Amino acid sequence: MLNINEEIDKPRCNCGVVGVFNHPHASIMTYYALHALQHRGQEAAGITSFYWDEQEQKNKFAYTRGEGLVLDVFADPNILTNVLKGKSAIGHNRYSTTGASKRANIQPFTMRYHSGILSIAHNGNLTNTRFLWKKLQEEGAIFQTTSDTELFLHLIARSKQKTKIDRVKEALQTAHGAYSIVLLTEDSLIAARDPHGFRPLSIGKLKNDDGSYSYIVASETCSFDIINAEYIRSVNHNEIIVIDKHTIETGEIKSYKIQEVTPEARHCIFEYIYFSRPDSKIFNHNVDKVRRKLGKNLALESPAKTDKDTKITAIAVPDSGNTATLGFAKVNNEKTYKTVYEIGLIRSHYVGRTFIAPGQDNRVFKVKVKFNPVRGVLEGRVVVVIDDSIVRGTTSKNLIKVIKAAGPKEVHMRITSPMIKYPCYYGMDFPSREELIANHYENEEEIGKAIDVDSLHYLSLEKLLESVPHDEGVKYCDACFTGNYPIDIDKDSNKYSTEL
Amino acid sequence: MLNINEEIDKPRCNCGVVGVFNHPHASIMTYYALHALQHRGQEAAGITSFYWDEQEQKNKFAYTRGEGLVLDVFADPNILTNVLKGKSAIGHNRYSTTGASKRANIQPFTMRYHSGILSIAHNGNLTNTRFLWKKLQEEGAIFQTTSDTELFLHLIARSKQKTKIDRVKEALQTAHGAYSIVLLTEDSLIAARDPHGFRPLSIGKLKNDDGSYSYIVASETCSFDIINAEYIRSVNHNEIIVIDKHTIETGEIKSYKIQEVTPEARHCIFEYIYFSRPDSKIFNHNVDKVRRKLGKNLALESPAKTDKDTKITAIAVPDSGNTATLGFAKVNNEKTYKTVYEIGLIRSHYVGRTFIAPGQDNRVFKVKVKFNPVRGVLEGRVVVVIDDSIVRGTTSKNLIKVIKAAGPKEVHMRITSPMIKYPCYYGMDFPSREELIANHYENEEEIGKAIDVDSLHYLSLEKLLESVPHDEGVKYCDACFTGNYPIDIDKDSNKYSTEL
Amino acid sequence: MLNINEEIDKPRCNCGVVGVFNHPHASIMTYYALHALQHRGQEAAGITSFYWDEQEQKNKFAYTRGEGLVLDVFADPNILTNVLKGKSAIGHNRYSTTGASKRANIQPFTMRYHSGILSIAHNGNLTNTRFLWKKLQEEGAIFQTTSDTELFLHLIARSKQKTKIDRVKEALQTAHGAYSIVLLTEDSLIAARDPHGFRPLSIGKLKNDDGSYSYIVASETCSFDIINAEYIRSVNHNEIIVIDKHTIETGEIKSYKIQEVTPEARHCIFEYIYFSRPDSKIFNHNVDKVRRKLGKNLALESPAKTDKDTKITAIAVPDSGNTATLGFAKVNNEKTYKTVYEIGLIRSHYVGRTFIAPGQDNRVFKVKVKFNPVRGVLEGRVVVVIDDSIVRGTTSKNLIKVIKAAGPKEVHMRITSPMIKYPCYYGMDFPSREELIANHYENEEEIGKAIDVDSLHYLSLEKLLESVPHDEGVKYCDACFTGNYPIDIDKDSNKYSTEL
Amino acid sequence: MLNINEEIDKPRCNCGVVGVFNHPHASIMTYYALHALQHRGQEAAGITSFYWDEQEQKNKFAYTRGEGLVLDVFADPNILTNVLKGKSAIGHNRYSTTGASKRANIQPFTMRYHSGILSIAHNGNLTNTRFLWKKLQEEGAIFQTTSDTELFLHLIARSKQKTKIDRVKEALQTAHGAYSIVLLTEDSLIAARDPHGFRPLSIGKLKNDDGSYSYIVASETCSFDIINAEYIRSVNHNEIIVIDKHTIETGEIKSYKIQEVTPEARHCIFEYIYFSRPDSKIFNHNVDKVRRKLGKNLALESPAKTDKDTKITAIAVPDSGNTATLGFAKVNNEKTYKTVYEIGLIRSHYVGRTFIAPGQDNRVFKVKVKFNPVRGVLEGRVVVVIDDSIVRGTTSKNLIKVIKAAGPKEVHMRITSPMIKYPCYYGMDFPSREELIANHYENEEEIGKAIDVDSLHYLSLEKLLESVPHDEGVKYCDACFTGNYPIDIDKDSNKYSTEL
Repeated sequence: MLNINEEIDKPRCNCGVVGVFNHPHASIMTYYALHALQHRGQEAAGITSFYWDEQEQKNKFAYTRGEGLVLDVFADPNILTNVLKGKSAIGHNRYSTTGASKRANIQPFTMRYHSGILSIAHNGNLTNTRFLWKKLQEEGAIFQTTSDTELFLHLIARSKQKTKIDRVKEALQTAHGAYSIVLLTEDSLIAARDPHGFRPLSIGKLKNDDGSYSYIVASETCSFDIINAEYIRSVNHNEIIVIDKHTIETGEIKSYKIQEVTPEARHCIFEYIYFSRPDSKIFNHNVDKVRRKLGKNLALESPAKTDKDTKITAIAVPDSGNTATLGFAKVNNEKTYKTVYEIGLIRSHYVGRTFIAPGQDNRVFKVKVKFNPVRGVLEGRVVVVIDDSIVRGTTSKNLIKVIKAAGPKEVHMRITSPMIKYPCYYGMDFPSREELIANHYENEEEIGKAIDVDSLHYLSLEKLLESVPHDEGVKYCDACFTGNYPIDIDKDSNKYSTEL
Repeated sequence: MLNINEEIDKPRCNCGVVGVFNHPHASIMTYYALHALQHRGQEAAGITSFYWDEQEQKNKFAYTRGEGLVLDVFADPNILTNVLKGKSAIGHNRYSTTGASKRANIQPFTMRYHSGILSIAHNGNLTNTRFLWKKLQEEGAIFQTTSDTELFLHLIARSKQKTKIDRVKEALQTAHGAYSIVLLTEDSLIAARDPHGFRPLSIGKLKNDDGSYSYIVASETCSFDIINAEYIRSVNHNEIIVIDKHTIETGEIKSYKIQEVTPEARHCIFEYIYFSRPDSKIFNHNVDKVRRKLGKNLALESPAKTDKDTKITAIAVPDSGNTATLGFAKVNNEKTYKTVYEIGLIRSHYVGRTFIAPGQDNRVFKVKVKFNPVRGVLEGRVVVVIDDSIVRGTTSKNLIKVIKAAGPKEVHMRITSPMIKYPCYYGMDFPSREELIANHYENEEEIGKAIDVDSLHYLSLEKLLESVPHDEGVKYCDACFTGNYPIDIDKDSNKYSTEL
Repeated sequence: MLNINEEIDKPRCNCGVVGVFNHPHASIMTYYALHALQHRGQEAAGITSFYWDEQEQKNKFAYTRGEGLVLDVFADPNILTNVLKGKSAIGHNRYSTTGASKRANIQPFTMRYHSGILSIAHNGNLTNTRFLWKKLQEEGAIFQTTSDTELFLHLIARSKQKTKIDRVKEALQTAHGAYSIVLLTEDSLIAARDPHGFRPLSIGKLKNDDGSYSYIVASETCSFDIINAEYIRSVNHNEIIVIDKHTIETGEIKSYKIQEVTPEARHCIFEYIYFSRPDSKIFNHNVDKVRRKLGKNLALESPAKTDKDTKITAIAVPDSGNTATLGFAKVNNEKTYKTVYEIGLIRSHYVGRTFIAPGQDNRVFKVKVKFNPVRGVLEGRVVVVIDDSIVRGTTSKNLIKVIKAAGPKEVHMRITSPMIKYPCYYGMDFPSREELIANHYENEEEIGKAIDVDSLHYLSLEKLLESVPHDEGVKYCDACFTGNYPIDIDKDSNKYSTEL
Repeated sequence: MLNINEEIDKPRCNCGVVGVFNHPHASIMTYYALHALQHRGQEAAGITSFYWDEQEQKNKFAYTRGEGLVLDVFADPNILTNVLKGKSAIGHNRYSTTGASKRANIQPFTMRYHSGILSIAHNGNLTNTRFLWKKLQEEGAIFQTTSDTELFLHLIARSKQKTKIDRVKEALQTAHGAYSIVLLTEDSLIAARDPHGFRPLSIGKLKNDDGSYSYIVASETCSFDIINAEYIRSVNHNEIIVIDKHTIETGEIKSYKIQEVTPEARHCIFEYIYFSRPDSKIFNHNVDKVRRKLGKNLALESPAKTDKDTKITAIAVPDSGNTATLGFAKVNNEKTYKTVYEIGLIRSHYVGRTFIAPGQDNRVFKVKVKFNPVRGVLEGRVVVVIDDSIVRGTTSKNLIKVIKAAGPKEVHMRITSPMIKYPCYYGMDFPSREELIANHYENEEEIGKAIDVDSLHYLSLEKLLESVPHDEGVKYCDACFTGNYPIDIDKDSNKYSTEL
């Protein structure tokens, strides 16, 4: 069995998170919001909801977690309407871990502790995991998963601080790394982004039928659109926000700092390049606008060229490259050569999470079940293919084969990001350094030969940084291109205990 | 539970068919080819393969049929490699029938009769079904399905003609209506299109590792691309072709006429407008070229206009409207106003055949789980939305709501076909006349008001006919727009026995 | 994967059939009745019901068929209450056929023909199948299954007789072999047993809430007990009975002969020995009484002996040997030695149709997951194990190993039937002659050595015949012991076409 | 949907546990052993295995847990052979808890803590749960299940003792109540029974192919029989045993005391009456011998009587009453009246865990799908039905109806235990006091009237105690009959937090 999305050679995001507070159908809203975030994690999903049990006069919670797409895990509508009751809920999409125990690692995680019940969902990756595991175990803590997210629960339950928010704050100060988290307690929804704010997290609100507002936090704003929620703002880096009864009554969202002094942000630049949906706003900016600018700057820096009288056909690798290709085609047309945007590859709607590709030489089939070339658009043309990134290069190679089968005159390739040379320790899942094609060849010319195109150019780091928004106090994490890691990392951290 | 594709308000095609001959992995090739035809029928699929049983020294066959997408029905790779053995196979995609007995109606159908075994798959709809059922039953025939396809089996088995091809010919002469069929016998693959040739069917070939050729017939050529098969030609209307040992040895495909005198073809014009994939060739022509011309002619006839200094943003309803929108934007830009093609709606990759849309007012959710507007592209703009057709109008209404939520200044709509006013009896599944929005309003202005756009225009029939290819002897069936039915129809035909 | 019931070395019955007429919940009654007949066929089940469609003002039917136990196939209660509507229904249990097309062979089969709709379920085996297939195909008939049951449908549809009952009669005259069938038409339930009456079939009735009676026919009367139906009588051999509106009004069940002259019956003697449930009445007699007599006669003929002062422990192979063992222990105790009936083997309740027996040497496990010896009962004792039959001998061998592990002093075995040496062509599924242990050894002493018991005796044919009821005109088919086949058989009949 | 086993009115045991050490296929042995213990818990099962990972040079573990019978949860043989690798494993059968989070409560539970990994499976019920939860939470512990079994993990991880065995000992001293547990560590299998030893647990061994021995502990010895293991002895009450490398090398099983002074044992007397399988040895004694004695003493105390010349038919409620009925019939026959043991009720083999009983008045159906009366045995007879216990009385009432439908002359009932009047807090699941039929009527005569028998007698407590083995230092817990609870109980203990 083949996981097409694994096969398609892109970095993978670890997760998407959602929290909903004060909505009569909180778990249904969470479900739609998670569906909109499906691209951030397609192998498992879960929702926890909190409700007041009239009969027993106490807060209870319910959860459902499972492997598969959101719509598979919640395929029984009864789960959302009858099981996951209550006015607040949090949810999580993730890629599955490997091994026999993977079910245990599906989030949200929920604990019962001295102050009641608390549920958490986390997008990111901690960097001092090994240290924390060791320390907590020496104090008698037991671990029932291998996820670093379980650490937050222990840290909160063990904090000696007097208020709930202080306990959360202390826990977040102790955990280093990248985390955008949502926490559900019996009376509040808490959200936070780590001091550098690697991963996005936004706040929205939604008017209920009774005139009150419900609040939603989510990794991307496409989650707000699907439920008609209104965008408020991004959670800031180094910020903890609390939405509770007070917020419902006054509209005020309480805000706390994690560290006393807020460092410069280090937003993940790859969220703009590939991860986030073009219809989302992240870090307070529209993704599609950035992506179009990437295409424009790429055309300025490395235009597609041919002889003077020939028209150039610019096509995207759908759908992630679509917007950038519009920008590229526009500038290439204006500045260099007659260039038209065309739809040269058709993406199958019917390939879900997994697809069997039987047959011995199935590498090309694997690409073809996802992309089919439009012969009428490509035959005899000078074609430039715009893609957002190359990781291992395997898909690119096969895709070029597929395109060439349609008979183009020339095939050029342009990439809207620099060469990926380093792993990510803050929540992206790249292959190892050895597998990255950029570490195997001298330069882009060599790589271009390897994937068999007439020319290949990557966007330079300078132009990349020129393309993204520059708010005050905001810098970017570009470690995957440069190896400059903003936070020290314990590279073996995740190796301490790989299986539970 | 909601079937999104049913909900999305488009006419539905009845089926896609495939046949493969002389390939060492015939069923695997059929599987890929069916996957490429998934858009022609998404609710059930089946494959029959024929193989030589060494031990028993005779021909046998195996089949697998089931409800769901091709990749669901054949999710167990063992089925393709070990069960569906042999060098020839046929396959079928379909929409499910309703009722308790729907499993029985999944094709291909196979029979054992006096001349061995024979399997059939059929795309289309017969028009003298009631007459044939009655006649055959009076002669003692028994029916185990309610599909008109079973009629072909009886007609072939009962023919007194001496050769297999003559028996098939006689059967096809007796069955009136629309049919593109593939038949598998113990030593040949037979394919045919009815005398008017409503539905497409093409022939391709593929070089095997041993140097011999395998042959493939399929509804659309996108099936050839996925397995790297080479296009030969379309099966002609009124033509029966036979691929057998002789073909393998000489490359010659035998050809027979169904009726002595070949009538004018009546190709389904809707195949060009919406059904077929843009990367396919049907009736010997590229679909994407026709579709682009539809967009261009639409812009000539009914350009989108606004005040002089304002730019117009042209967006497609993805993905079926994409190509036409490129054509529309180009001509509108050249002839009328500054117009740019933009990606204003993002289509979800993760919605499969069914999607639960819980919650009371879920009509807008239903559209939103499939399409999300890109606020950055639409906000404050004069937008023209290009779609291929409007059937009931329900999706259009909700889609316009979704678009308006992103804050455009104006929203115009253009449709690349005339108003649909009449049902199809030749293999498409429209709603009843009463449900068609075009039968509820006086004119396009009224419909435009109903779906709440600033202007609405359909392509005229004249311009439609101007946009499609005009080969010799080829006319089009445009009955859904005009009510001019090329073959007499027994409108109650399918009501004779609705359940088995 | 291991099918335990296949592994457990017993002949297998082909089927159980049920018909219900004039019950407000006909399919629910059929479901319970089929569940009671589960032992007659455990690998597939189906129900067809007929109902009046008020809206369309015509008779319709619905069916559900599937692989698995009755309670698996109908696991969704909605099927019985909402899908299988109507006041009449028929049902069938069967062993699955092999091959890729086995689903198609699950009964009941239903056809639409010149006189409406008709559904059939069949227990038995035809003997002129090959002849009939050939003849019907030459007339243009097409076959969509490989089951001989489909022949009945063709024969009925092709009969030129004027009344429905005459058409059924003609069909039954043409089909030779063993058949107990139920037929459902739009206005009647028809049941019949072949002229020799190999297989059982009984008639019962049940008072409805409104005072009217519903009627039921079933292979065994345990089906009547589960729904509180009252036993009326057995369908006679060579008899067709019709239950219709007239029956409901008057209580009269119409009766017809198949052949003019009724031959001597040839009841399957193995139904008494093993197939039927002990709590059933078949052929008008209680099974448990016959089975007890088998045990008594066995003890008279071949008592278990040991030295004078030792007590003998008689244990059954549960549950089929239980009743006979009670009879054996009683007579052995009275006539020969002090003998007590004990429960020496515990049968697992939790082994369903299939059980995985992983591990390399899993032959003993396979027996142990079904039977566990009671050490306290067996240790140090002289044990006699009573079983109803030995087929291949494999289970017996392993069972004796299992018993010996509990430390008995001696182990004797007694079988309540003669040696099985011949295949059955009338509806039982034995292994081939080569696989039958009785064809591999000279005599019972040799077989006893092979399965490692201190003594082994089979019941003689004379004593067997002395144990069964002798109604007027009733003889038995004992072909599996004697090779005397009452009806000529075409031994290759089933080989004509083994796969569809 | 109906859970037949819930419907059948018996107390339910909480669990069965198994541990295997030093077997090349430890998880396969655990699987068979769990299958033999299926009667102790039918709604969920799990296995954890430990293995040495050559590549990473460390111990790892794998687990699989799921709802359903053992053979459902492990239906994929790949799980046992490839996933659950290693030479040691533990397993658990359980009844499911209710609520949305039931999956989380399926055992074994596994933790990673300061000393590595440890897995536990538990049969029983703690009595100071509420106190322990509170205390541990105040220390910062977090709970991820609602099972009291999770407490053991925390207690072990938090113990300050220096050796593993001392930490386990301290944990067991702190947890009060009933527990028979198996613990798997990286280098040992530990088993223990609480100081009173409510629940059984036995030790066995099995010779491997290489001449070494593997060891097994299990709730009942029927688990040993299925894998041909040899019985060694029962784990004593108040005993912790350790099986490790030393045991493999020398055959010595290390033994420790939980409390310094071993109290009198309090074996659950209901294990002998109903829970354990008759072919098992528990507390060092054969269950079937005790059960037969119960029947004999019952006949001495309350014989079934009728007029002098009439024979009495003694039948069991199968299968739990079988052995006792043999004893009852023997003594009743010798001491009082001519009495014969008969099989009067046939138990269906095909009812698994759940069975749909559609139809409105389905109470009798529910009994009938499990038991069918043998008319030939019962009609016109004086019948005495022997059962082991009556809980709510619902099944007994319906069963008597079912028996009476077969036309007996008289029906008497005898119960091989006293009236159940009190709940169990040590691992059995009875209904509440209000639901127990014995708390609703004055005396057995009244209850007899309620369930409609001609006479009803329970075994007296004195005779019960006379029937069970009396080893030195062993007394019984008979709290369900007497209300004398050996350990103080916190009746609200389980109400502290019912949901996680």
